[in-house]
Amino acid sequence: MVKTQSLKRDLGLVCSLILNIFFLFKVGGEWNLSWSKRAASEAEAVAAISCSGHGRAYLDGLVLDGNEGPACECNTCYGGPDCSQFFPDCAVNADGGDPLFLEPFWMQQAASSALLVAGWHRMSYSYGDQSTISQELERHIRKLHDIVGNAATEGRYVVFGAGSTQLLNAAVYALSPDNSSSPARVVASIPFYPVYELQTDIFNSVDFQFQGDTSLWKNKSDSDTEVIEFVTSPNNPDGQLNKAVLHGPNVKAIHDHAYYWPHFTAIPAPADSDVMVFTLSKLTGHAGSRFGWAIIKDKVIYQRMVTYIALNTMGVSRDTQLRALKLIKVVLATGGRGIFEFGHETMRKRWEKMNKLISTSKRFSLQKVIPEYCNYFQKIRGASPAYAWLKCEKQEDKHCFAVLQAVANITGRQGSLFYAEDRYVRLSLIRSQDDFDLLLHKVNELVVGEEGPQTM
Amino acid sequence: MVKTQSLKRDLGLVCSLILNIFFLFKVGGEWNLSWSKRAASEAEAVAAISCSGHGRAYLDGLVLDGNEGPACECNTCYGGPDCSQFFPDCAVNADGGDPLFLEPFWMQQAASSALLVAGWHRMSYSYGDQSTISQELERHIRKLHDIVGNAATEGRYVVFGAGSTQLLNAAVYALSPDNSSSPARVVASIPFYPVYELQTDIFNSVDFQFQGDTSLWKNKSDSDTEVIEFVTSPNNPDGQLNKAVLHGPNVKAIHDHAYYWPHFTAIPAPADSDVMVFTLSKLTGHAGSRFGWAIIKDKVIYQRMVTYIALNTMGVSRDTQLRALKLIKVVLATGGRGIFEFGHETMRKRWEKMNKLISTSKRFSLQKVIPEYCNYFQKIRGASPAYAWLKCEKQEDKHCFAVLQAVANITGRQGSLFYAEDRYVRLSLIRSQDDFDLLLHKVNELVVGEEGPQTM
Repeated sequence: MVKTQSLKRDLGLVCSLILNIFFLFKVGGEWNLSWSKRAASEAEAVAAISCSGHGRAYLDGLVLDGNEGPACECNTCYGGPDCSQFFPDCAVNADGGDPLFLEPFWMQQAASSALLVAGWHRMSYSYGDQSTISQELERHIRKLHDIVGNAATEGRYVVFGAGSTQLLNAAVYALSPDNSSSPARVVASIPFYPVYELQTDIFNSVDFQFQGDTSLWKNKSDSDTEVIEFVTSPNNPDGQLNKAVLHGPNVKAIHDHAYYWPHFTAIPAPADSDVMVFTLSKLTGHAGSRFGWAIIKDKVIYQRMVTYIALNTMGVSRDTQLRALKLIKVVLATGGRGIFEFGHETMRKRWEKMNKLISTSKRFSLQKVIPEYCNYFQKIRGASPAYAWLKCEKQEDKHCFAVLQAVANITGRQGSLFYAEDRYVRLSLIRSQDDFDLLLHKVNELVVGEEGPQTM
Repeated sequence: MVKTQSLKRDLGLVCSLILNIFFLFKVGGEWNLSWSKRAASEAEAVAAISCSGHGRAYLDGLVLDGNEGPACECNTCYGGPDCSQFFPDCAVNADGGDPLFLEPFWMQQAASSALLVAGWHRMSYSYGDQSTISQELERHIRKLHDIVGNAATEGRYVVFGAGSTQLLNAAVYALSPDNSSSPARVVASIPFYPVYELQTDIFNSVDFQFQGDTSLWKNKSDSDTEVIEFVTSPNNPDGQLNKAVLHGPNVKAIHDHAYYWPHFTAIPAPADSDVMVFTLSKLTGHAGSRFGWAIIKDKVIYQRMVTYIALNTMGVSRDTQLRALKLIKVVLATGGRGIFEFGHETMRKRWEKMNKLISTSKRFSLQKVIPEYCNYFQKIRGASPAYAWLKCEKQEDKHCFAVLQAVANITGRQGSLFYAEDRYVRLSLIRSQDDFDLLLHKVNELVVGEEGPQTM
């Protein structure tokens, strides 16, 4: 009898165990995965390659001879098959604007940000409404701006591009006159993002021409020639909340708001101009996805931009739009708190550390960024610009980029690329933690070393 | 005792069941999926929405009020919440070149073609080698051409674009002279793909201008002006294996090989010209992904194209490159047999049916496509062009597009869009099976109905 009871109890336990297993696998309908399992396993296998915390393996990484999986791609100054080797004498990369400071955020959101793409997903040229713009994604983007309070979207049109890059020229095209005897003058305020000039030049259009610094045209904007002013706010490289300089009936502005997110700046009010450009790169950090959007007041300008994008690339990759939707859904799930608190805290700390170091220096100085009241965080928030716009103060240090490279092996971006003096250099603060740590270490050596030669 | 034994047996069964469950989940290392499960479940749930076989639900489909999941997007002439309603009087779509004839192939390859993208996948602007081109994808593309035998790649350069669309203008830019007094003349042979002109026009460059039909310049190509000839082979709309018409020291050609795959044409020999453009759209059918590549002989031309793509969009979306790699891996897994046999069989049958119908007509005729020996299939293979280039033979049917629309409610694409006579109309044969079936049905009615009025 005892034996029977004990067996009954065991059987009860076992049944309960089975039920638990089924419950476990059935929550969220996840227990009966079929065709998606292989892809999921592949992705988890690649993600499990640690690369010593100083690199990353990707699904589409190179598969080297003798390897089964993709090889580790190591951060700057790290190497070896698993990125465990450190090269202390290597050049520190503070050059490009790779927004990898957000990578840890996405690793924390692994489950909610993962995306499984079926082989037959969106093969068509168009969505159900015959457009090349995902309505669902557009709806989420509008919601995002409402929550963040950084742009007015009501009654405006939204157009997508392959990053803000493609939208910049789409806007220049759309704002330029057709069949005019004189091309529109495209201008920007020094220091400015080099792509404005390089891009306008490469298209070498009959309808528009890059004409340099805004200030040259300040008292000439009453002429008949159309002027298109790039207004970058916050500005790349110096983080200032620029406003349009030129005004008048023949002046149009393209507001580049790539950095107008709580990571990098206080949000004093929703941007409200006629042509506003945003990019996923500096919002979620997915620069590689090449996704941007423009918010446009005027229907004709919007339609001209849509036509331009259609004939240039037939819209933005539907794969990219799907991914952007997934990422923006994750951002929205916490009303933005998750990513913007992470982003702002990371950037604020980096700026504080850099600022503290440089403030002890007599040889170098940084731009001033004044803390402002932020409507999103509903408080005055500490400065957190994307770049340090470093100035070499010594008379003889005319080429600051070369000074940093020679003395500290730091690769920044020289001031003249932004049409400023070479006494300036831009140091990127938004790269990976490894890159920032190395940069700070080298800057520290540099600043501490100042006293040496001075007292000698 | 009997009770105890029966319980023991039950317990044994239960234990074996548990072991089986564990074994089931462990095969292929798939039992312990963690962060990828949610994404996999979401994708499978969406894929399970059947839409009555006449539509599709997508992960990024509109979520309508009251719905939990995305809504069905119905094929032309189908409607209702589950696409089960058929509208027999609706207009049949034979217009665009949506290559959905390949969708069933990808549904058959669900497991091997699925892709799981981690939230942190490739956030950077560049790959490990600092380029914006995935080396792994380039390697697979070269392998694909080797297997198919449709293009020489050895010693050539490969550049990626957002579909062939972006590469067409990149090539025009790269082949145009810098700082010349006269812009390059861009030409194509009638009938030609309208984007050549529309795209060249919208960029309105100082360096190149669209100048119409190749034949106008046949005896003038000895002048000093550079000429850039678009050579489309097989040609869109008529499927002919065109060759360059113009020759001379100042003539350059862009070979558009979008349709040079065994689905649509025999492959008599590897294409071997200086600038060759291909696209994923007509290879795997993923038009929405916007991925293409060009194979370039000359290093300077290649570098100019890379610069153009960089300043236009900063390369092609890394998400798209990842997907293209996955899809091309599936193609390569069977040496191309899987997809090309499916593609050719589907297109050959469609062409045979259309051809048979039209051959009984006195009012309409089709272009001739001669079966040729195919080096890929190693046999003479039946014709299988992507489009029917239909001609209205009756004197009074000058506007064939309007005839088809009025008499049979068929929407084709009018001949004048290809700079040909409007006596021609292009009917797309590469769309979904639903679209083709409806087209054939309407064409049948049209042809059968011919006798009626004639004998009255």
